[in-house]
Amino acid sequence: MENINSIIEEIRKTGAGLYGKDFLLTWQKNREELDLVLHVADALRMMREQNISCRVFDSGLAVSIFRDKSTRTRFSFASAANLLGLAVQDMDEEKSQIAHGETVRETANMISFLTEIIGIRDDMYLGAGHTYMKEVGAALDDGFEQKVLPVRPGIVNLQCDVDHPTQSMADLLHLLHHYGGAEALKGKKIAMTWAYSPSYGKPLSVPQGIIGLMTRFGMDVTLAHPEGYGLIPDVVDIAGKNARESGGSFRVVNSMDDAFENAEIVYPKSWAPFHVMERRTELLRSQDKAGLLELEKECLANNAKHLDWECNREKMNLTKDKKALYMHCLPADISGVSCKNGEVSEEVFEQYRIPTYVEAGFKPYIIAAMMFTNRFKDPAGTLEKLLVKHQKRVIVG
Amino acid sequence: MENINSIIEEIRKTGAGLYGKDFLLTWQKNREELDLVLHVADALRMMREQNISCRVFDSGLAVSIFRDKSTRTRFSFASAANLLGLAVQDMDEEKSQIAHGETVRETANMISFLTEIIGIRDDMYLGAGHTYMKEVGAALDDGFEQKVLPVRPGIVNLQCDVDHPTQSMADLLHLLHHYGGAEALKGKKIAMTWAYSPSYGKPLSVPQGIIGLMTRFGMDVTLAHPEGYGLIPDVVDIAGKNARESGGSFRVVNSMDDAFENAEIVYPKSWAPFHVMERRTELLRSQDKAGLLELEKECLANNAKHLDWECNREKMNLTKDKKALYMHCLPADISGVSCKNGEVSEEVFEQYRIPTYVEAGFKPYIIAAMMFTNRFKDPAGTLEKLLVKHQKRVIVG
Amino acid sequence: MENINSIIEEIRKTGAGLYGKDFLLTWQKNREELDLVLHVADALRMMREQNISCRVFDSGLAVSIFRDKSTRTRFSFASAANLLGLAVQDMDEEKSQIAHGETVRETANMISFLTEIIGIRDDMYLGAGHTYMKEVGAALDDGFEQKVLPVRPGIVNLQCDVDHPTQSMADLLHLLHHYGGAEALKGKKIAMTWAYSPSYGKPLSVPQGIIGLMTRFGMDVTLAHPEGYGLIPDVVDIAGKNARESGGSFRVVNSMDDAFENAEIVYPKSWAPFHVMERRTELLRSQDKAGLLELEKECLANNAKHLDWECNREKMNLTKDKKALYMHCLPADISGVSCKNGEVSEEVFEQYRIPTYVEAGFKPYIIAAMMFTNRFKDPAGTLEKLLVKHQKRVIVG
Repeated sequence: MENINSIIEEIRKTGAGLYGKDFLLTWQKNREELDLVLHVADALRMMREQNISCRVFDSGLAVSIFRDKSTRTRFSFASAANLLGLAVQDMDEEKSQIAHGETVRETANMISFLTEIIGIRDDMYLGAGHTYMKEVGAALDDGFEQKVLPVRPGIVNLQCDVDHPTQSMADLLHLLHHYGGAEALKGKKIAMTWAYSPSYGKPLSVPQGIIGLMTRFGMDVTLAHPEGYGLIPDVVDIAGKNARESGGSFRVVNSMDDAFENAEIVYPKSWAPFHVMERRTELLRSQDKAGLLELEKECLANNAKHLDWECNREKMNLTKDKKALYMHCLPADISGVSCKNGEVSEEVFEQYRIPTYVEAGFKPYIIAAMMFTNRFKDPAGTLEKLLVKHQKRVIVG
Repeated sequence: MENINSIIEEIRKTGAGLYGKDFLLTWQKNREELDLVLHVADALRMMREQNISCRVFDSGLAVSIFRDKSTRTRFSFASAANLLGLAVQDMDEEKSQIAHGETVRETANMISFLTEIIGIRDDMYLGAGHTYMKEVGAALDDGFEQKVLPVRPGIVNLQCDVDHPTQSMADLLHLLHHYGGAEALKGKKIAMTWAYSPSYGKPLSVPQGIIGLMTRFGMDVTLAHPEGYGLIPDVVDIAGKNARESGGSFRVVNSMDDAFENAEIVYPKSWAPFHVMERRTELLRSQDKAGLLELEKECLANNAKHLDWECNREKMNLTKDKKALYMHCLPADISGVSCKNGEVSEEVFEQYRIPTYVEAGFKPYIIAAMMFTNRFKDPAGTLEKLLVKHQKRVIVG
Repeated sequence: MENINSIIEEIRKTGAGLYGKDFLLTWQKNREELDLVLHVADALRMMREQNISCRVFDSGLAVSIFRDKSTRTRFSFASAANLLGLAVQDMDEEKSQIAHGETVRETANMISFLTEIIGIRDDMYLGAGHTYMKEVGAALDDGFEQKVLPVRPGIVNLQCDVDHPTQSMADLLHLLHHYGGAEALKGKKIAMTWAYSPSYGKPLSVPQGIIGLMTRFGMDVTLAHPEGYGLIPDVVDIAGKNARESGGSFRVVNSMDDAFENAEIVYPKSWAPFHVMERRTELLRSQDKAGLLELEKECLANNAKHLDWECNREKMNLTKDKKALYMHCLPADISGVSCKNGEVSEEVFEQYRIPTYVEAGFKPYIIAAMMFTNRFKDPAGTLEKLLVKHQKRVIVG
């Protein structure tokens, strides 16, 4: 209980509040708001581990809208909702039915009459996911103002075309636990690098989320990718700006070795080039199957020129003391295991397998914290009330 | 709390009870029973809005059987179940597995061992949905009598081939709130009219539900449709009988203008003619794809003769003071938005968009009230116990 | 309450504990452990019937992994989880994604961060289901030891290629209730016999589960099937060994009449021969559609030689006093109802229809008891705490 109380103190010190604010992009939040979410996640986790119930709702829905398949994020969302006392209701309408205009406006209201939180994952089309989330948000604002809805449900971005804040915040919380706090992260070199994969079309949101967030914490962030594999230029600009403001640094290089050199943390992960995602989006929109096949063929041929972008022992030996922390959002393409050549060698992955699981374990609590701070004006006070109430999660021993 | 107490008083005054009675067709319920459901819906809504928990179950299942796609009703059912403390379990068996005879009898019992409520939506086949619900009900009766089941789960009709009581009752509750009570509805003209849509095969249950229910409340109900677009004759007869008994009136006309003339409420909505639904049911049963395509073609051609059955400004100007209340169960076919020509012009829909959302917002509470009255012998007393208990829904502020 | 207290006394007398132990095969449990589960199931059922809440969790997930379709077991699992306070989260990943090696290890952890119980059904491939469950278990052990997981979720086998313990234990509990306790079962003749069905490829886990379990209770178990329709030889050996140890008997015969002769309980049910399941598994693995069709054709032709293996009046007249108890896991292939010729005549099935429903009604409580004993070190003490707490399940009357 002492530890929880000291975390609650930290929460109060942030002076921040996210009540009624959607969590869409980390760079729309100030540093205190990010700290708030991180601390609340820690508090909820500690409370659960001490068998103290975190149920703040005795009923209410958490709606999930997944526009592509997901296991990890789906389970994290379900776990977070359940932890707080909400029931998950999946929204599985055909894409076409929720895709545009009037329908978004209407559906957003129809699913929200008794809803507290809407989690959305929509990362297939460049220019679409984030736009869609804002559209849903505007419809909910309207519905609440017009007294259609008794409360305005909060939106949590479970991955869009631009950012993946539940992933990057969970990754950050992992680093904070691993290194013992935000001070320790300052000046640490993290290499967010492209890695080879025998597939194409992987979203940009993870690398973008990482460079957009880690640059807020004074880290030395190096983004590395082969020429032509760039991310959305606006996000790259944001990362640069963040680094200047936080006292860190941000570089883009075209060499994996350069990025790994003396890095303390490495995050090797495949993605499709920005301009490919643009072409792919157009082809998907026009349902041009032949064009998609051709693009895939061309991209795989391009990828194949960079088989050497693999995180293996040789690469790891370039890092600080040859033992940088390896990170991945999972699942990784592991050479010789899930594919012939992949993002990471079996040996390196096996060495860091458990830490990547630990990394993933922060996500349910990050999502729960985003839900919690969205719904409660005084998160510290609400947590204290839960402590006083001291309902056991497992009711009888 | 004062308001809730006065609603509870109204509930008590009805003297009605629906304990253990399935809610399949509104015309099988007497007026007091309908009032009971309407008042309980109001009470539950008010309690939730005052943060008073409506959980009457700490565990138990609410089973949903949807034999066709649904978003609005699915979310309403999930919200209602969750409000009362039940977990939703979807029954997604292939249609063939639950379609007939022994299987219905068996499955009804197999899904009910710890179940309180079964919600069923089955509106595809004329002559099937209502029959199926009665079959499930008989199987549950048998299972309960034979001590297979500890309680006899209640059935709520979430739309069948004959009626759509959760829709019509929500529509009615909307009118009661809009006009300030049942007295105000007497003598009001409501136009339930067919409207053009570029699709065919839309179920009859909404217009049938509306004419079957609104005629109970002394309203002047006009049903309008092009020649050949009639509803199930038995239901039309029931509407006539209801009107005579309630002191209202009921007319069938073949002119949208006639129906709109001086109407205070208009409900323009497309449906397939009764005799088409009969042919369609046979073709679906015999899996005659060619026949279905031909029928569709023929029907769309027929529909196209009635493009002028659109609820637009011109039509609205015929209504009382040119400002009748527009209603729709949503989603509407909006001309120029969801289709080239549809049920309603964009301008009229936009004007009434928010009221249609408000209308839809009553459905979760109507469903919750149907569940609640099915399960509790003394709904007023049970609500009072919830008030005394005064558990907060959002547990900590 | 008196009865519940005496059951709790029985639970304590077993001296057994299953805390943290997966429930995969009944023959891996000692007799006291089986008794523990049976008594806890009885206690939970009685408590629920007396409106005493069995919620031991205020939050937490129960994950279900169904690798083939299921209605009965899915609803039983959902009911059990809900009874104890857990929310069900389905894991519906494509088979390929959870099928092997690294992926199983990873996925098992990813779905378990806030999970108490994982229920798995995987009976399609010989040699696969049980192996898969052990693989998941090992991954969870590893995750817990490495501090990835705060607790080690328990696994409940909801049917594998080898055993179907939730079915056989529910069947056993039915017999215990029917005959009034374990003493009464000693020496009773039960006939587990193959029966004709116009389908092939039905799993072996039910007959294997029955002969593996009923031989533990001193019963005279006769397994009957046409020549060539044998079960997994290892399981048959286990049944023989069980019988010797429990003072019962076990015989395998090739005559339905022989098995039915003087039997007090009959369980006629179709299954595919062991060696066919082996061939089928290979063909499924190699996705040999032509081979599968050929195998099916061959097997159906073989089945057709044994149309007389039908449980009808004539056969029933061979049993003790012509009135053996008929059992089935449902759904049964009923001659003239669900197929032309099947496992059981309509007349016999109809006579015993209700008892088979009663039989099925024990399954949710057996699953709940497996979950409960997996999670609580002192099940008797925990149940007593629930009695003292005496929270009503239906909160207000």
